[in-house]
Amino acid sequence: MSQQLQNDLILRAARGEKIERYPVWLMRQAGRILPEYRAVRASLSGFKELVETPKYAAEVTIQPVDLLGVDAAIIFSDILVVPEAMGLEYQMLEQKGPWFEKTIKSESDLKLIEDQFDVEDRLGYVLEAIKLTNKELNNRVPLIGFAGAPWTIFCYMVEGKGSKTFSESRKMLYTNPSLSHALLDKITTVTINYLKAQIKAGAHMLQLFDSWAGILGTQQYEEFSMPYIRKIANAIDQEVPLTIFSKGALTSLESIASTNCNTVGLDWNMDISTFRESIGESRTIQGNLDPCALYSSHDDVHRLTTNLLDSFKSQRHIVNLGHGVYPDVDPEKVKTFIQTVKDYQIKEAKF
Amino acid sequence: MSQQLQNDLILRAARGEKIERYPVWLMRQAGRILPEYRAVRASLSGFKELVETPKYAAEVTIQPVDLLGVDAAIIFSDILVVPEAMGLEYQMLEQKGPWFEKTIKSESDLKLIEDQFDVEDRLGYVLEAIKLTNKELNNRVPLIGFAGAPWTIFCYMVEGKGSKTFSESRKMLYTNPSLSHALLDKITTVTINYLKAQIKAGAHMLQLFDSWAGILGTQQYEEFSMPYIRKIANAIDQEVPLTIFSKGALTSLESIASTNCNTVGLDWNMDISTFRESIGESRTIQGNLDPCALYSSHDDVHRLTTNLLDSFKSQRHIVNLGHGVYPDVDPEKVKTFIQTVKDYQIKEAKF
Repeated sequence: MSQQLQNDLILRAARGEKIERYPVWLMRQAGRILPEYRAVRASLSGFKELVETPKYAAEVTIQPVDLLGVDAAIIFSDILVVPEAMGLEYQMLEQKGPWFEKTIKSESDLKLIEDQFDVEDRLGYVLEAIKLTNKELNNRVPLIGFAGAPWTIFCYMVEGKGSKTFSESRKMLYTNPSLSHALLDKITTVTINYLKAQIKAGAHMLQLFDSWAGILGTQQYEEFSMPYIRKIANAIDQEVPLTIFSKGALTSLESIASTNCNTVGLDWNMDISTFRESIGESRTIQGNLDPCALYSSHDDVHRLTTNLLDSFKSQRHIVNLGHGVYPDVDPEKVKTFIQTVKDYQIKEAKF
Repeated sequence: MSQQLQNDLILRAARGEKIERYPVWLMRQAGRILPEYRAVRASLSGFKELVETPKYAAEVTIQPVDLLGVDAAIIFSDILVVPEAMGLEYQMLEQKGPWFEKTIKSESDLKLIEDQFDVEDRLGYVLEAIKLTNKELNNRVPLIGFAGAPWTIFCYMVEGKGSKTFSESRKMLYTNPSLSHALLDKITTVTINYLKAQIKAGAHMLQLFDSWAGILGTQQYEEFSMPYIRKIANAIDQEVPLTIFSKGALTSLESIASTNCNTVGLDWNMDISTFRESIGESRTIQGNLDPCALYSSHDDVHRLTTNLLDSFKSQRHIVNLGHGVYPDVDPEKVKTFIQTVKDYQIKEAKF
């Protein structure tokens, strides 16, 4: 599908093919830490204008490729574009985060949302940004598309904002499991259509973010998140490589690895060696340097990154942080992280 | 030490002695959910007046014993009284949570705090509340004292407020490990003195809360939290039973169980059976019903609680939620939870 990419390292790593060195990128690399990003952001009315204007979204998507030298771009967007397209408009409040005026609390609220609509119409601005990014990237590196996993999107649609415990969302799982499943199902339908449209627009790879996985116990995660992740993975069916990153879902990692995905993302609390032992070479592992490690000295960033790379037992790895890069990290430290990965020689024994 | 307690079930369960039925209490049972608590709270200037006035603190400590029938009282207080006694005054902001004007960011900030002082003087109001509570409880149930674990207190002293990532605190572990250890050591000194004073004042049992355990990877938790927890457990040395509740520290549970404690608290994401298998009968397990389970119907609360009890393989259990009870839970549901535990017959095979 993709025209001759100059650097397809991350795609080969995801598929378990031979690589010359480990590929590296950072979650949240587009935005936050780069002065060049903040300059674009400051020239606009707000976060949403940036997300919704393909020209600007493409510009900040490409910045980390030019400035940091990562092996992949990830489209600048937000997981909340999906609930918005379904009918719940969100605002991004400064210092506070996302806020939805309307939320789903009961069956009757389902009339507020739709799952049968043309994603190319309502989410056309993301698809346009993908096309524009690819055009400007000119096949230098692959472009990653993404969406939130249904459980995480459900949390925002029920809660209407961020929360430490998401207790309203978890309450619904107990008080109204059938409504919960109905809502999760609708989110899943839209997410599949959206991801397929991203592939069609030119995404070379996809990542599903289950940011609030960690607030569910194993059984509830198995009941209310996994079936929908599985359905999405089956719908994508390896058309492009798929990564699943379920933050905090330590006890569900094997379940995640058993889906039709290529790569499992680990957060910085998860142990790569233990997970590798349990899944063997069946999947690629992405992660998982502690984002706080980038606060340390250049020497320490180099040392901690090398320790991480030394812990890999095979080539099936994509290097990343264990969470999005923190906003106040020095971009120079990010460069040290990336350069350390690029300079690292994979031992022959790992093939 | 304790005079004839009418109900010492929880102390026997903690020590692994024979019990007639499983003891039950709830984290955050004193406060929040009871209208009787809110009435006391509304009559005062704020949260801190309640914490600092022994008469009121004792009153709300006893309410759940009278109104809910729990098997233990826990002194109404806050883990932040320790950093305040050390020199960092805190405010409890409505809707926002704790806030410290002064924080520890560098070596020179250590001059803001003290660790050598008379806890009976600076924290006398807590000790007075313990004495008053015991007097009014009149030996009906044991009284639990508590403190924050040093790592969690460290987070507040560095960050100055709550945070999703506590990245400032974690940053210090990387950028200045020696300052980190110096601060953790000072907190530990005060915590030991404070807990010993609580025992002297009449606490029958102690719990250490490591609320932010889950944000550290296993190695960092082992380096920056466990040595201090171990030191505290050794200082208490079974004078009264000690419970350690490290929320989210899934990969450090065995390490916690290896300290000189009696009981390990599990959050609702942790699997009791797996943990029991790994530690055998060496420790009591406390927990771990999902606090959100109390949002379900009375029948479901009964069923979910019974499922939890059925999963116990032995008598070494103290029943609790896997986190503090949520503020909007119906107290009647809490009563169903408690009554289910009280009515449950422990199978002979479990002895």
